[in-house]
Amino acid sequence: MPFYCFHDVDVMATPSDIREHVNNLARAVDELAAKQAETGVRLLWGTANLFSHPRYAAGAATNPDPEVFAWAATQVRYALEATHRLGGANYVLWGGREGYETLLNTDLRRELDQLGRFMAMVVEHKHRIGFKGTILIEPKPFEPTKHQYDRDVSTVYAFLQRYGLQDEVKVNIEANHATLAGHSFEHEIATAVSLGIFGSIDMNRGDPQNGWDTDQFPNSVPEIALAIYHILRGGGFTTGGFNFDAKVRRQSVDAEDLFYAHIGGIDVLARGLLAAAAMIEDGRLARFVEQRYAAWNEPFGRGLLAEGQSLAAIADDAVRRGLDPRPRSGRQEYLENLVNRFV
Amino acid sequence: MPFYCFHDVDVMATPSDIREHVNNLARAVDELAAKQAETGVRLLWGTANLFSHPRYAAGAATNPDPEVFAWAATQVRYALEATHRLGGANYVLWGGREGYETLLNTDLRRELDQLGRFMAMVVEHKHRIGFKGTILIEPKPFEPTKHQYDRDVSTVYAFLQRYGLQDEVKVNIEANHATLAGHSFEHEIATAVSLGIFGSIDMNRGDPQNGWDTDQFPNSVPEIALAIYHILRGGGFTTGGFNFDAKVRRQSVDAEDLFYAHIGGIDVLARGLLAAAAMIEDGRLARFVEQRYAAWNEPFGRGLLAEGQSLAAIADDAVRRGLDPRPRSGRQEYLENLVNRFV
Amino acid sequence: MPFYCFHDVDVMATPSDIREHVNNLARAVDELAAKQAETGVRLLWGTANLFSHPRYAAGAATNPDPEVFAWAATQVRYALEATHRLGGANYVLWGGREGYETLLNTDLRRELDQLGRFMAMVVEHKHRIGFKGTILIEPKPFEPTKHQYDRDVSTVYAFLQRYGLQDEVKVNIEANHATLAGHSFEHEIATAVSLGIFGSIDMNRGDPQNGWDTDQFPNSVPEIALAIYHILRGGGFTTGGFNFDAKVRRQSVDAEDLFYAHIGGIDVLARGLLAAAAMIEDGRLARFVEQRYAAWNEPFGRGLLAEGQSLAAIADDAVRRGLDPRPRSGRQEYLENLVNRFV
Amino acid sequence: MPFYCFHDVDVMATPSDIREHVNNLARAVDELAAKQAETGVRLLWGTANLFSHPRYAAGAATNPDPEVFAWAATQVRYALEATHRLGGANYVLWGGREGYETLLNTDLRRELDQLGRFMAMVVEHKHRIGFKGTILIEPKPFEPTKHQYDRDVSTVYAFLQRYGLQDEVKVNIEANHATLAGHSFEHEIATAVSLGIFGSIDMNRGDPQNGWDTDQFPNSVPEIALAIYHILRGGGFTTGGFNFDAKVRRQSVDAEDLFYAHIGGIDVLARGLLAAAAMIEDGRLARFVEQRYAAWNEPFGRGLLAEGQSLAAIADDAVRRGLDPRPRSGRQEYLENLVNRFV
Repeated sequence: MPFYCFHDVDVMATPSDIREHVNNLARAVDELAAKQAETGVRLLWGTANLFSHPRYAAGAATNPDPEVFAWAATQVRYALEATHRLGGANYVLWGGREGYETLLNTDLRRELDQLGRFMAMVVEHKHRIGFKGTILIEPKPFEPTKHQYDRDVSTVYAFLQRYGLQDEVKVNIEANHATLAGHSFEHEIATAVSLGIFGSIDMNRGDPQNGWDTDQFPNSVPEIALAIYHILRGGGFTTGGFNFDAKVRRQSVDAEDLFYAHIGGIDVLARGLLAAAAMIEDGRLARFVEQRYAAWNEPFGRGLLAEGQSLAAIADDAVRRGLDPRPRSGRQEYLENLVNRFV
Repeated sequence: MPFYCFHDVDVMATPSDIREHVNNLARAVDELAAKQAETGVRLLWGTANLFSHPRYAAGAATNPDPEVFAWAATQVRYALEATHRLGGANYVLWGGREGYETLLNTDLRRELDQLGRFMAMVVEHKHRIGFKGTILIEPKPFEPTKHQYDRDVSTVYAFLQRYGLQDEVKVNIEANHATLAGHSFEHEIATAVSLGIFGSIDMNRGDPQNGWDTDQFPNSVPEIALAIYHILRGGGFTTGGFNFDAKVRRQSVDAEDLFYAHIGGIDVLARGLLAAAAMIEDGRLARFVEQRYAAWNEPFGRGLLAEGQSLAAIADDAVRRGLDPRPRSGRQEYLENLVNRFV
Repeated sequence: MPFYCFHDVDVMATPSDIREHVNNLARAVDELAAKQAETGVRLLWGTANLFSHPRYAAGAATNPDPEVFAWAATQVRYALEATHRLGGANYVLWGGREGYETLLNTDLRRELDQLGRFMAMVVEHKHRIGFKGTILIEPKPFEPTKHQYDRDVSTVYAFLQRYGLQDEVKVNIEANHATLAGHSFEHEIATAVSLGIFGSIDMNRGDPQNGWDTDQFPNSVPEIALAIYHILRGGGFTTGGFNFDAKVRRQSVDAEDLFYAHIGGIDVLARGLLAAAAMIEDGRLARFVEQRYAAWNEPFGRGLLAEGQSLAAIADDAVRRGLDPRPRSGRQEYLENLVNRFV
Repeated sequence: MPFYCFHDVDVMATPSDIREHVNNLARAVDELAAKQAETGVRLLWGTANLFSHPRYAAGAATNPDPEVFAWAATQVRYALEATHRLGGANYVLWGGREGYETLLNTDLRRELDQLGRFMAMVVEHKHRIGFKGTILIEPKPFEPTKHQYDRDVSTVYAFLQRYGLQDEVKVNIEANHATLAGHSFEHEIATAVSLGIFGSIDMNRGDPQNGWDTDQFPNSVPEIALAIYHILRGGGFTTGGFNFDAKVRRQSVDAEDLFYAHIGGIDVLARGLLAAAAMIEDGRLARFVEQRYAAWNEPFGRGLLAEGQSLAAIADDAVRRGLDPRPRSGRQEYLENLVNRFV
């Protein structure tokens, strides 16, 4: 199932006029629809580029200038409709400028409220036009801004709850953005799965020694295997998929480098998928985790979390019984060895 | 107003037996109450040490073993009651082991649910015993764990909302934990203020080049001035205060080093407070921010965020009017210069 | 004494042809010489841009293609001669591409040998044309490369010694490059001073939370004061000076932002200089350090380091005397307080 | 060939008296010699613990107190002799306290001179007693100090050259120390090989998200394969070997966890070795690098680096010929794919 993704500005000339932008997009969509029909390639997601134009230097929805908010709303309205028309499976909001350069000139609460209202209108428009795809936010901690509001999965989840959007919006997790935020890729995936907001994946990785978005093709089977393991354990994709938002390196100037990069990336993905599937079929990893928490399914454990339970009652019981739990091994080395049999 | 803080385990021998722990704590509270009466020093907050004992290696409330959860509940019950008896202004929960060493053995959702239930019972017990102080969580990203669940202010806010605790629990922000999480100290403060969960402060800073908790005394007036500026702008402390959870350096082996450290730290705090107060009285910084967003108070801006507004209506209007907003300077250098006149 | 700096490519159109490059540069030098005569502004240093053109993607002197080495040699020859003609006080070599993207395609030893030979020829040409200024290398750890060979001051010193250049080449230290390499700015300065290779300064700082070269104007008086303190303690500049290789922020789009930035930066520098001068005149800081090592000027200390001394003799003496040294305080907090009186 | 390593203090009680220390060590050596004879296990290296005792808080050889230098010299003298007697293949100096906590109290040049003299005496004593093993320095950037003088391989090489020790001392590279210093493990190995100072390896890795020495067992075959590839390409070990200076995780409290950890670590090492050997036998990786630089073996390339060559002559020739080199692909993605076939 080959897919592609589109940015509203990448598919046309940079707009100088809002009407020209809308017209250009309409033409681009006609061409893309024709190409889809011709090739069978489908649209994984569409997005609006709310960050490249100088008007967005201080943010799109979070801009101090309401007119910029309105420009952004216009772009998203048409990009969302274009995505709908092209049968897109998702619509992604990447907040590349929704953040700040310095707190000295920033009203955090106001900017977050603007962003919350903006998102709510996007969701409302989605339903109005009958778009069935998922609305996705793509977390990133910084760059080019000093601080971006959708820093990581947990921060996005805080935002979604604050504005009542947690059942409407999910996350598109990028490997490189996860590591820039100080997390492992699988941490962000597992967190999103546990919070019920896992949506889709950008596979591009960073460099372990560099502190910016290098957007490299995946090349580590062990890392990808664990990422996919958590996706599969969480039930796999519903509307999401794997996007390669990766670039060949600056010195890779030949056309064939594009082939090497994509073939290598897909191979790593395929090997990671096979390894993850084998880990799941094997079952030992999942069983270990289940057994580690097994006592929580027993009467004492269930009782601790039950409604009506209280600190006082638990403490009275603990003191009466002279509770003295013994540390149990977490078996980290055993589990790491186990994973190494599959990757 | 001199204050102190206590850890339930720091004020007594490490407990080998739960009943001994409870008895030790009761004796310690008697002594502390006597000292308070004698000196007039008051209690800023109490806390339970749920991290030093080996039984907490895999977490306290988030432990796979329910008996450890029960031990932790017992400690918190008595530490909270001790804090209440000593007239404490707050009660702090520091989740030093509430996290994971490896995702391979961890059920994230289950552990978060355990922690949510635990917090709810703490809040319920607070009300039951009539404690009027604030319950605080102290965010930290890692160390000694690989990942701690209360990573930063936004992550804590996500957690509080998920478990319906956002009106009951606030944050105790530590400078060093903020920088370990990849944030400036003032970012964490401003974020907590904007989310309505700002509580109290641990002043200890980190080293800009080292990646662990060095817990040094504050020594940068410009940094502290900005931190205090955001606290004052947010309305100042209600029940919170400044705690020095700092240590003299390993080579500072003389008694007088303790004096140098505390005097220097307090001096930095005092100079920072004077600078922050002067910035607020001056008013230019706040006015700049207000004016930067002024258009949002005009009819067009207000209309964009109003109920009933929609993406389609905004876009139709923008296209009709040929909207073309111009970038405006954020004046970062001017604002940095302005701050430098005060510090 | 106002100074400026020039890049051979910044002062003319990007060259398409090597002869055109040489001719363009000659014309630019005529114009610069006229401007110098007209304004009295002098040249702090010149440099050749060996990194922007795609031909340098794999390095200049360290390129796998000898023809690129020859192009780079040509640029440096003419840029050095231009610097000489314009009365430049220094010539800077910034090795922005002298590094690697991946070790997989890199012969480290060969590339270092190429770079060593290149530098030796630059030094030889300097003497040949009678240029009296200093040749400077500007350390940087990475970006846009994964790894740059002139990572930090110590790495440059290793390189200079290996190729016998330690008496001919010094370093131009940039604040932002120091912090990217994991050092404080004053560490790099103090290290260069202690190794006898301190040359000049680029004042542009980074952002403490971001991992790339943000090139911001200096704004922290305490940091600059300590940097200048170490420069002054090392004897000050000989041919070097302070260069502002800084940019206003992306949102600072007005002409007046350039003024705010430069005025604010110079003010910080001036306040830092005053503070550093006061610390030196006060003398307590320097005296503390001197006294801390005073025992090394006594007979026992001097004897330990004297020629002919040996491990065996020292050990025999230590055992015989039952040596038992006591830890002494390093007084870090006292010293930090002392500095805070001046900044 | 099973090996072990010893620390002079780890093999006996912490010494309170220098004579007791020497006597304890002598007894420990007798026991170790008997165990060696009994088991056939040999000594990879010995070392002296110059960091745990409070007397070393301000450094061992770099201490402001000469008596501490003398204590350290005594420990090293006897630890070196013990290593010699036990047939050790190397002697390691780990400078865990040779650095600073704050530049404010530190005389960098003096401390480096002390360390240089100390090392020279160690080398002299080695030759005096006829020890044929290699003297090794183990680079580490910081922790517990703010800055350690033997930060990374290049910094050690700078130090060795400055004190004329580059032919006498090599490096013991630890994976975790490499990554803390901002390098990949293979970078440090390849750098040491290219500088001719590669000695031995500590296999313990860090955590990619944590900023301190976690000392974990190796678990990534791709990373270890590349590390071993560079060791093999550099000619393999002479006196060095692989040391596991790793610890099981805090929760791994059972005896069997030690087995899991060591077996898993050795398995990773074995798989890495097989992969590296296969890469070398395959030869494509090495051939690619050779061919990338092939033009340097042609007359034009050789001439550029030849003695007597000059910037002026190269430039004249370049201009005359209108040199115009074309960028060539570095094929990073191809090479990463190639490596992935072996790991």
